[in-house]
Amino acid sequence: MTIVITAFERSPDGGKGLARDTRVRWALEEAGQPYEVRLVSFRAMKEPAHLGLHPFGQIPTYEEGDLALFETGAIVFHIAERHAGLLPDDANARARAIAWMFAALNTVEPPILELANARLLEGDQPWSKERLPLVEDRVRNRLGQLSARLSAADWLDGAFSAGDLMMVSVLLRLKSSGILDEFPNLAAYVARGEARPAYRRAFAAQLAINAGKPPAG
Amino acid sequence: MTIVITAFERSPDGGKGLARDTRVRWALEEAGQPYEVRLVSFRAMKEPAHLGLHPFGQIPTYEEGDLALFETGAIVFHIAERHAGLLPDDANARARAIAWMFAALNTVEPPILELANARLLEGDQPWSKERLPLVEDRVRNRLGQLSARLSAADWLDGAFSAGDLMMVSVLLRLKSSGILDEFPNLAAYVARGEARPAYRRAFAAQLAINAGKPPAG
Repeated sequence: MTIVITAFERSPDGGKGLARDTRVRWALEEAGQPYEVRLVSFRAMKEPAHLGLHPFGQIPTYEEGDLALFETGAIVFHIAERHAGLLPDDANARARAIAWMFAALNTVEPPILELANARLLEGDQPWSKERLPLVEDRVRNRLGQLSARLSAADWLDGAFSAGDLMMVSVLLRLKSSGILDEFPNLAAYVARGEARPAYRRAFAAQLAINAGKPPAG
Repeated sequence: MTIVITAFERSPDGGKGLARDTRVRWALEEAGQPYEVRLVSFRAMKEPAHLGLHPFGQIPTYEEGDLALFETGAIVFHIAERHAGLLPDDANARARAIAWMFAALNTVEPPILELANARLLEGDQPWSKERLPLVEDRVRNRLGQLSARLSAADWLDGAFSAGDLMMVSVLLRLKSSGILDEFPNLAAYVARGEARPAYRRAFAAQLAINAGKPPAG
């Protein structure tokens, strides 16, 4: 059955790979699964047809035969469960890889989202300059713990897994902030993720859509 | 094999059920699985023994024979995968229930966490009063979308699932804010969750630990 995902017609990041379809593309590339992409405009994302697929009016979505899914974490997990390459066979190692997926999305990403909001939504507020360091410190706190756990390992728990895919994707959002570089082992970890052929194909595919278009927003 | 989870020795909420062990207790109660609880102090949570179990120094953790897990979403999913009552048998319905778990944790909870930070960590900052309505509106935006999707249904997608367990748990954090009551169908949804016998047992168990102790913090 053909897999169809949705992506921004024009991404707010202009193709830097931060839109969440990149995470799903990466998983599909790791799993060796071909897919088609349907582009949606910001207006279409808030219309009933798309809201029927995605109750929060976002991208990506995932359609495969009778199945329609939303939420990046769930889509990546669905792909990882059905194809080799993203989850270990051993039951306990598999459960731990899934724990890293959830940790990326519910423990590491929330302070990073808060920092993005502080910059993008509140950058012109009178409190912005004074508040930003507080928000950055919340991010540093989590990165310090993650850095200690990763230590000198290549990946979070043995071989590369969907947990690493998600954690690298979340950390990539910090690349322009400089905070990632304060943790050299995390910066190297993200670079290892970006160097994977599957990531490079995913990145190139989303860039091709945005090349030559001005960023949305 | 005996299941052992960790919980706060003294919860910051004094036993209102908002500490994340309540989510795991609820899942274990829905699945009919007995469990033991090991209480940890705030100091012990940041020491090497606990950090070995939970890299971010939080509760709950989950131990069962050789398996040690952290991250509430992953623990609830592990329980849901192995026992009846939390995930549908039909493959597509199961994938959608998992999507709601991730949606609760990565789409609905982040703005709620940001609101909690605004209140608890920045309540005494000079910008607090002016900024709070902006943060509340981000929460309202997500709740409005969730409310539209839930509509008049009892649960998010057919029968009660781990997706509902997680979404109700996330929304419970808003109970004291008054925002939940602006969306009567969501308030009724949360009340349906709280009325489940499994939730009531989980709530009573965490309250029993905290009764008579002053809240931590």
